[in-house]
Amino acid sequence: MSNGLSDGALLRLVRQRRCVRRFKNDPVSREAIARILEAGRFSPSGANRQPWRYVVVDDKAAKQAIRVECERVEVLFHRNAPAELAAWMKAQGITPQKPFLEQAPPYLIAVFYKTREPYAVPSVWISIAFMLLQVEQEGLGAAIYTPAGARLNRILLVPDEFRLAAVLPIGTAADHRRQKRYSLSQMAFQNRYGAPFAM
Amino acid sequence: MSNGLSDGALLRLVRQRRCVRRFKNDPVSREAIARILEAGRFSPSGANRQPWRYVVVDDKAAKQAIRVECERVEVLFHRNAPAELAAWMKAQGITPQKPFLEQAPPYLIAVFYKTREPYAVPSVWISIAFMLLQVEQEGLGAAIYTPAGARLNRILLVPDEFRLAAVLPIGTAADHRRQKRYSLSQMAFQNRYGAPFAM
Repeated sequence: MSNGLSDGALLRLVRQRRCVRRFKNDPVSREAIARILEAGRFSPSGANRQPWRYVVVDDKAAKQAIRVECERVEVLFHRNAPAELAAWMKAQGITPQKPFLEQAPPYLIAVFYKTREPYAVPSVWISIAFMLLQVEQEGLGAAIYTPAGARLNRILLVPDEFRLAAVLPIGTAADHRRQKRYSLSQMAFQNRYGAPFAM
Repeated sequence: MSNGLSDGALLRLVRQRRCVRRFKNDPVSREAIARILEAGRFSPSGANRQPWRYVVVDDKAAKQAIRVECERVEVLFHRNAPAELAAWMKAQGITPQKPFLEQAPPYLIAVFYKTREPYAVPSVWISIAFMLLQVEQEGLGAAIYTPAGARLNRILLVPDEFRLAAVLPIGTAADHRRQKRYSLSQMAFQNRYGAPFAM
């Protein structure tokens, strides 16, 4: 690697992972989904309360209902998005249409969390991060889709004490958007902000 | 494994990872810290805004100042903690004293995030999750320490537009608290809440 670090197995996964919004029609094994859930299950959480709940969706009608509800809130979201975010979404070709919700073959994982648990938000996002890396380990791709205000509890019969964090469509990648990153010296410092961390 | 899943490299890391609050005095290599930061650097973020900033702390005086400030807010936090959380902390032996902040040999990573970026909180916690797994890949241990209200910006000269998410003390584990997890059937469902995900 250009910065002289030797790679471990994990850094390979981390570096090659991409968010995927278009999927091939290739089948996805149930065992792979189970291992992805397993990675989330073992993640750490505030006071070990494990506030996450995962709903795996492979039913066609349920996926369609999720898409309809998400596209409903997306129209509102795009209308009210801050200028900078709107420009980024336009450049990425992101619109209120979310075909990947219906066409991901065949799995969505809808991730909910119990809002009243301590550190519930950090905990659920750590669990999502662990699952994203297991997706990569399986040779699959996923998006982190966060439909603000979508009422998926009703569709998936999830009690109101749980809130949706994200929907992860999972399949074989048909696109690869490489995103640039800041260099380490731009965001990692030593003992005080602005002093670059040096090897 | 008891559920019949075969292990990949990542699931091994996920399953063996523990939060560590006591460290041995063994040295930690700078290269390991660099690879841990690297795992965070490549994590995904809302609109790829990379809102995280990492401050690696190995200066003795800075670590001591961080400990003093964190213990100041911990006294307040313990006084006001909800009963259930207070009981859990007591059972775990967690008190307002945080020796690991000063005694972690020698590195703390203080993780900040730019609050105004889209999806800043999810993004920074995904980045912390990626770093936690790289800590495990390095054969090291870390705690996820979240001192509510601690003013570390002043100590580390971090601009106010950034907020502290967590402090990660990193070293060789001297304790191992195994935490039980729900079974998959208790928190992973299929198409509707309550219907267990079946292999």
